[in-house]
Amino acid sequence: MKLLKDRILTEAKVMPGNILNVGSFLNQQVDIGLFNEIGKEFARRFVGKKVTRILTIEASGIGIACITAQYFNNVPVVFARKHRAKNIAGNVYSVGVTSFTMGVDYSVIVSKDYLRPEDSVLLIDDFLANGHALEGLAILTRNAGATLIGAGVVIEKGFQSGGSRLRDKNILIESLAVIESMSPEQGIRFRES
Amino acid sequence: MKLLKDRILTEAKVMPGNILNVGSFLNQQVDIGLFNEIGKEFARRFVGKKVTRILTIEASGIGIACITAQYFNNVPVVFARKHRAKNIAGNVYSVGVTSFTMGVDYSVIVSKDYLRPEDSVLLIDDFLANGHALEGLAILTRNAGATLIGAGVVIEKGFQSGGSRLRDKNILIESLAVIESMSPEQGIRFRES
Repeated sequence: MKLLKDRILTEAKVMPGNILNVGSFLNQQVDIGLFNEIGKEFARRFVGKKVTRILTIEASGIGIACITAQYFNNVPVVFARKHRAKNIAGNVYSVGVTSFTMGVDYSVIVSKDYLRPEDSVLLIDDFLANGHALEGLAILTRNAGATLIGAGVVIEKGFQSGGSRLRDKNILIESLAVIESMSPEQGIRFRES
Repeated sequence: MKLLKDRILTEAKVMPGNILNVGSFLNQQVDIGLFNEIGKEFARRFVGKKVTRILTIEASGIGIACITAQYFNNVPVVFARKHRAKNIAGNVYSVGVTSFTMGVDYSVIVSKDYLRPEDSVLLIDDFLANGHALEGLAILTRNAGATLIGAGVVIEKGFQSGGSRLRDKNILIESLAVIESMSPEQGIRFRES
């Protein structure tokens, strides 16, 4: 997606430790016009697929998922949560996940009320790096007995193992920008699409 | 906002400990059509005010803020975060906050890059109970030297002290549904608007 790649080249900062700071438009400050273009592009990539739920994980996937849902007939968006809050009622699906960015382990939880066997689920997240978050969402979807349509990712770090591991598991991944390599010295290079 | 109040009366569950579970449409599973109506209503309530940034706090405020921004000329949405992540670069504004729902203390952080003295800031959040989260966002806004336009809240628990304390500080609060009282036995009663 050229608009997105241009934005990454213009504004993203490559930080030590394989961190890509896109806070100015993606996950600290959000460009709503860009999010709408991202939503339209996900709809184009998954055209013809029946989607009844969009599943994402707090926090930075939420905005993209909500804007994207507008291009999928306003299907409900379900947020998986990273810890058990007092206001989650009833039974939950749960899976253990490690965050690359945060460097911690946590449980990803979703209420059984909001993922059902008859659902066709599209996963949406801002980043795909080592893939543990998306893999957790895929496991929750399968634990619910629902159908996994695939995953829409804004930025995939192609030099980390998540994308190939998930594709090896026959999960359809559509990433709008795949970074082949990046470094503070050499900048960002995208994978050819 | 009648549409919202009807939805609360139909679907919300009053839980022990003053917890209102609105997970089916507001903060675990999200109704995007309702969010659009909420966004339009916030635009109506703050019509004529110059807003250059919407500021919210992760996680459940993010979706409402992003959809709402579409009715404020796609102004950028800034997420305050609840802990310091590795991918937050540079200097930040920070304030200590206590979460009612989570029963914990944490720091609310926003990058100085995304809140500037020339900004006119609208706060958006899903709940107002004891008001510490919104108060934290108001303090961050003032620490940035920006102008605080007010706060748009989806559900205010009018029987808790946050709303009156913030209004006493001359913060303009627009709550779309104010709950006067609630209990598992007696149900939910709204404050007359």
